[in-house]
Amino acid sequence: MAKTSFTPVSEAGRYKVIRDIKEQLKSLDSANTNVVKGIGDDCAVLRVAPDNPDFLLQTSETYVEGVDFDLSYAPLQHLGYKLMSAAVSDIYAMNGVPVSVTINLAIPNKISTEMISQLYSGFTKASEVYSSPIVGGDITASQSVLVISVSMIGTTHEDRITYRSGAAINDAVCVTGDLGGAYAGLRVLLREKKIWAESGANDAFEPNLDDYEYVVRRQLVPQSRNDLIESMREHSVVPSSMIDISKNLLQDLMQLVTASKVGVKLFSAAIPVALETRAVAEEFEEDVDQYALQGGEDYELLFTLPEKDVNKLMNHFKDFVVIGKILPKDKGVQMQTAEGDSMHFDTSQME
Amino acid sequence: MAKTSFTPVSEAGRYKVIRDIKEQLKSLDSANTNVVKGIGDDCAVLRVAPDNPDFLLQTSETYVEGVDFDLSYAPLQHLGYKLMSAAVSDIYAMNGVPVSVTINLAIPNKISTEMISQLYSGFTKASEVYSSPIVGGDITASQSVLVISVSMIGTTHEDRITYRSGAAINDAVCVTGDLGGAYAGLRVLLREKKIWAESGANDAFEPNLDDYEYVVRRQLVPQSRNDLIESMREHSVVPSSMIDISKNLLQDLMQLVTASKVGVKLFSAAIPVALETRAVAEEFEEDVDQYALQGGEDYELLFTLPEKDVNKLMNHFKDFVVIGKILPKDKGVQMQTAEGDSMHFDTSQME
Repeated sequence: MAKTSFTPVSEAGRYKVIRDIKEQLKSLDSANTNVVKGIGDDCAVLRVAPDNPDFLLQTSETYVEGVDFDLSYAPLQHLGYKLMSAAVSDIYAMNGVPVSVTINLAIPNKISTEMISQLYSGFTKASEVYSSPIVGGDITASQSVLVISVSMIGTTHEDRITYRSGAAINDAVCVTGDLGGAYAGLRVLLREKKIWAESGANDAFEPNLDDYEYVVRRQLVPQSRNDLIESMREHSVVPSSMIDISKNLLQDLMQLVTASKVGVKLFSAAIPVALETRAVAEEFEEDVDQYALQGGEDYELLFTLPEKDVNKLMNHFKDFVVIGKILPKDKGVQMQTAEGDSMHFDTSQME
Repeated sequence: MAKTSFTPVSEAGRYKVIRDIKEQLKSLDSANTNVVKGIGDDCAVLRVAPDNPDFLLQTSETYVEGVDFDLSYAPLQHLGYKLMSAAVSDIYAMNGVPVSVTINLAIPNKISTEMISQLYSGFTKASEVYSSPIVGGDITASQSVLVISVSMIGTTHEDRITYRSGAAINDAVCVTGDLGGAYAGLRVLLREKKIWAESGANDAFEPNLDDYEYVVRRQLVPQSRNDLIESMREHSVVPSSMIDISKNLLQDLMQLVTASKVGVKLFSAAIPVALETRAVAEEFEEDVDQYALQGGEDYELLFTLPEKDVNKLMNHFKDFVVIGKILPKDKGVQMQTAEGDSMHFDTSQME
């Protein structure tokens, strides 16, 4: 291998690697008529039989300790719950419901069987909440860190399936719950971890987080929005596009408008932020708008609706707000501030 | 965590961990009517709708570099092909066909984008051979070693589905292809690796393996037996039980008879071994029967058939042999040697 070229992945960047893989897979995609949608949305979409209107959804993610999670402040049962929430969130983002999930673990020697049991108590709790049975998985060894893969199958109907790519001009941009809370929780946890490390304490890390319960819960045990999906199904509302906010509002919104080939205007003042999140930003002397826009891991749903459907949904489901409007593509991604000014975001770096 | 009990996974053992998890999941399993079969076979089996006779199959495995594969002798394109063969082999083992696959990578910095591309050339090649489109996946970072997760969905029909648990007394025990070849290949590769390491060579490892082509291919690029599955479907033969030989003949046979609550007699002389495999065992002065019984990773299919179906299948599909007979449970697991003696295997350590 000494003579071949070597471009470290860290140098090329994650998006470049994904683009390369997509390119390599392109020829295969079109050959298979069962693939309704391959790479490029929250889940892959499949038909099992040619004229069956029920679609299958498939999603899988791998989490590496020290990269994707930190056991020094994330209790294992919370981690199990969170990773299951993240998986089911991808199913909901396609307007689907879960069928089943498999969990693979690569376990280093520092992890005990009691710790595995704690992790599984989180998985099983989430499995009940989301009606998503754990049906299998695989155990292997790992040299140093815990690695967890969660793979979920879901189902939806061709009349209900919702892609990132369906947003139309003048649609309302909506979001469930509130944003920035998970990031506020992370700020608090990292501060406590630092204080603990600097104190040289030998005890296990047991911070007093009573004052921050809401934001810490948002970070450690996020709840995926099955309530929105159920309400929309019950009242026959189908969003024109949808994505879950796993990265952050700005990045996921850009994925949505890029896929839909449209522009968007966000109303800064409308972006929902909890009082508890504001309090943390104030304490840290940071900008709470940045928490909401770029904080990440809130696992709320971002979706677009034709104007006429906003009130229809609002009559039955209260926990969402309109935060923007879809514009023609040439308008780009802009935000209207509370003062009425307009700012533009650079979308050139997006996938 | 200092005060809670700590049992290292290595001490408890892999089977104990799996048993614990099964126990923890037990209460959930029965609650969900869509789960036809949870943990305990080659795949989970699911119904998407209550009266739909098409079953979904779900399987997922994680492979850690240095634990489950060794990049010093496994070229990346071969590794990609092999891991896909392993996944599809689990689908075939349920008498199903693949629908789609997702691949997750956790990539350390020593891996280049060119190496990812080689890995994917193996995945895409196998994807074509097995008609199993790659529809998604996930990329994350890893501190030190490459971690690969492969998750596959398959489908089968309730009239064709085959479990480990269906073997009946007097059924013939059959196996495709030949056994022990993958292990013979591993022996050769490990010897070459050792010679290379001891020589202190700085060049990349490029052993001359011409004389061992067959066995090295068996180890590096195993082929999953889609041909058997297609032939059985075409000629309406449904095995009474089936498992793929991913661990080794003895261990996988024990899984099958344990699940079926039966005993078995193997005919030692009937176990198929290739000449090339015999030659390697001879060169290493080792027992070729051990290669075949305990070698592992051949990815052949082990299945049982009622006597009357053996000839029916044989008329259309040639690459299998009868290697034993199902007995009542109290007969245990025995092997009849070429000399006519009978030896018994201890099954008490089995899962």
